[in-house]
Amino acid sequence: MESRRVEPRTLPGFMELLPNEQIEFNEIKEKIQKSYEKFGFLPLDTPVIESSEVLLAKAGGETERQIYRFSKGDSDLSLRFDLTVPLAKFVSANYGELSFPFRRYQIGKVYRGEKAQAGRFREFYQCDIDIIGDGSLSIMHDAELPNVIYETFKTLGFEDFTICINNRKILNGLFKSLGLSKNSTDILRIIDKIEKIGRDSVKKELQEINVEEQKIDKILEFIEISGTSDEKIEALKAFGITDETFMKGVEELEQVICSIRTHRMPEKNFTVDLSIARGLDYYTGTVYETFIENHKNIGSVCSGGRYENLAEYYTDKKLPGVGISIGLSRFFYQAKRENILKAKKNAVAKVLVVPMTNEEMEYSSEVAKKLRDQGINTEQFLEDKKLKAKFKYADKLNIPYIIVIGQEEAKNRTVTLKNMQTGEQETTDLSKLISKIKEV
Amino acid sequence: MESRRVEPRTLPGFMELLPNEQIEFNEIKEKIQKSYEKFGFLPLDTPVIESSEVLLAKAGGETERQIYRFSKGDSDLSLRFDLTVPLAKFVSANYGELSFPFRRYQIGKVYRGEKAQAGRFREFYQCDIDIIGDGSLSIMHDAELPNVIYETFKTLGFEDFTICINNRKILNGLFKSLGLSKNSTDILRIIDKIEKIGRDSVKKELQEINVEEQKIDKILEFIEISGTSDEKIEALKAFGITDETFMKGVEELEQVICSIRTHRMPEKNFTVDLSIARGLDYYTGTVYETFIENHKNIGSVCSGGRYENLAEYYTDKKLPGVGISIGLSRFFYQAKRENILKAKKNAVAKVLVVPMTNEEMEYSSEVAKKLRDQGINTEQFLEDKKLKAKFKYADKLNIPYIIVIGQEEAKNRTVTLKNMQTGEQETTDLSKLISKIKEV
Repeated sequence: MESRRVEPRTLPGFMELLPNEQIEFNEIKEKIQKSYEKFGFLPLDTPVIESSEVLLAKAGGETERQIYRFSKGDSDLSLRFDLTVPLAKFVSANYGELSFPFRRYQIGKVYRGEKAQAGRFREFYQCDIDIIGDGSLSIMHDAELPNVIYETFKTLGFEDFTICINNRKILNGLFKSLGLSKNSTDILRIIDKIEKIGRDSVKKELQEINVEEQKIDKILEFIEISGTSDEKIEALKAFGITDETFMKGVEELEQVICSIRTHRMPEKNFTVDLSIARGLDYYTGTVYETFIENHKNIGSVCSGGRYENLAEYYTDKKLPGVGISIGLSRFFYQAKRENILKAKKNAVAKVLVVPMTNEEMEYSSEVAKKLRDQGINTEQFLEDKKLKAKFKYADKLNIPYIIVIGQEEAKNRTVTLKNMQTGEQETTDLSKLISKIKEV
Repeated sequence: MESRRVEPRTLPGFMELLPNEQIEFNEIKEKIQKSYEKFGFLPLDTPVIESSEVLLAKAGGETERQIYRFSKGDSDLSLRFDLTVPLAKFVSANYGELSFPFRRYQIGKVYRGEKAQAGRFREFYQCDIDIIGDGSLSIMHDAELPNVIYETFKTLGFEDFTICINNRKILNGLFKSLGLSKNSTDILRIIDKIEKIGRDSVKKELQEINVEEQKIDKILEFIEISGTSDEKIEALKAFGITDETFMKGVEELEQVICSIRTHRMPEKNFTVDLSIARGLDYYTGTVYETFIENHKNIGSVCSGGRYENLAEYYTDKKLPGVGISIGLSRFFYQAKRENILKAKKNAVAKVLVVPMTNEEMEYSSEVAKKLRDQGINTEQFLEDKKLKAKFKYADKLNIPYIIVIGQEEAKNRTVTLKNMQTGEQETTDLSKLISKIKEV
């Protein structure tokens, strides 16, 4: 027998939590879901496996290398690497059945065969919402999403976070007007590092890729625009660039900021940030990133933006959209490491009902049923062990209440209720028990 | 462009629901989860991908052929085909961290490359609970699980279902005492068909595999034991087989039935059924199947049983357990087809707030926020469309209430509330709105 044993290991890069942390993880996941539903987003649950031809219609480069791709029979299959491509497939395939704007959320696992390292997962949860228009989509939706982000992170217990908002048209227009559209990827990559490497190094790196001095100054002037959101918008208007795309971007940004205010979001929770770019190809208008104050090192916890056309690889219908995504597994990992989740004891059962011996099993079953019927998660301890072992079990599982049932209790139809946190213990009527537990 | 288009198809055997059905599916899934949690089961979420060596330590034959197995870099990987093997891995790997009896639930997708056919899925949800003992596990748990099944299906709105209970030791003991242990797989397969093909055909098929006449009679006498659960148990005691395993099985079955009654389950919802066997190798004691009355054709909707040792391939610890599983995707598919789910209109948003023009956007945002703050799922319609189109949208999404906000409403801080079901419409103060919506 021994020789046939296999080591029960989990693959690196795959998150597998102990129950105590899993309870916490699930609670966050459920809160995000409920928050998305509060805004009327509809659920979607697409397969993890798709035909490679469909899933990779648009992919390429780095993305394609990370794909889990394989054959089964004659089929060339791949595991989804995000929830956006499956959404594009779904909307294209079911266009006639959907009501537009189509508001959907999807919370599910996605797969990327990245190099495994701390905080990087090969299987991770994404929590996405997108709003897809049929032909067009009002910019009001661009202003609604920051409100969803705000309500979601408030629900998760955060107060001090900032949703940074920009518009890709502004950057695109700037580069276009400077004749630098072709270099824009490199330039963005360089200016993205300004906080890390400083102004001078950015300047040097831009020189190295042969950007002219005068243009470098204009770029630096741009990314150094500072002040309140309104001041930044005014500065952009006075920036002296008359490129149409640039102007349109500034106009949209102003509209979005103005509309966000109608949602009564606190000013401290959002700001114009002209350095936010987010991958080059996909987004075409508003873009978002979200940072937890004093924990910017964990990166953006919720990002997204507006795109021109969701599904051009599947349909000739024009489907503009705007969406956001929370990378939940990574967020959870980082939040635990940074200790920014509210510390508390996690338990599923609120009460453990413990019969002293099997003689009291029937009455203890009755008590457990009464509690469950009142919506209280209740576990009945069914092993024949010493009382001390039963208490230890409850303690290890953080179950806040124990109900002990001995001969006396069974005879008098009472229970002895012990509060595991305070150690307080009292004998009470079954009829009064529910209200006692509910009130805490 | 056109030529690059890919058909946005979903693979056969993969369930992908439209939002309306997805809402219903998720509601069932959540009810099952809440029901499992009500009994204090702890959540577990293992990876979909495991090392093939680990996942297939025990597999073989039909199972192994159905596995999605592939390489990524140097790794030989497989997708999980059930939630039991990952549980075995998890408990073995984390033995020291867990409290026993370890009660876990897991609800997740599993993968089997079966021949695609109606009602058979290659990706499907399983909703499992298991209770794992450390060395031993009281038979009280075998009696608790039918109670979990009962409460779960009651929560799903079912009244008329039967949990069929048997004990594998009885069958094993019967075959042993008849000297038929080696043929038991074939015999079980044949007697399993008795309802379909009738007594005579079963007899004929048993003759064909060379079971002696006298033994056939004993087998038939056994499976034709009838009456109430108690009558069946009495008949077993008087059946004249003194094999130790047989006797032990009868004793356990009696204990389980007796203990189930202490949970106050209605008698009509459970019964001893001596024909229940469930795959040969795995289960070693109590076994369960659950049938919806008048819809037995959809097969068992919740099955499971007791096993001697969960994880012998991973650890030398003896880990007996008992568990049940609901094959949710299949259940949902069948239940829709048989029309046994309560018909109702599914919607995420309870209210659609519709500003007549963008002028009323700010006040309508305020109304939407008020409703959400009260826990009411509220969508704000943000597209600039004709009122008729907005009503049509609400109707298609089954949103039960529309709040229309025009110039008058914004000025007077009122709203016009329309009940989409009755068509009733009234103008009301914002302050009274919440209670009006909540009371329905």
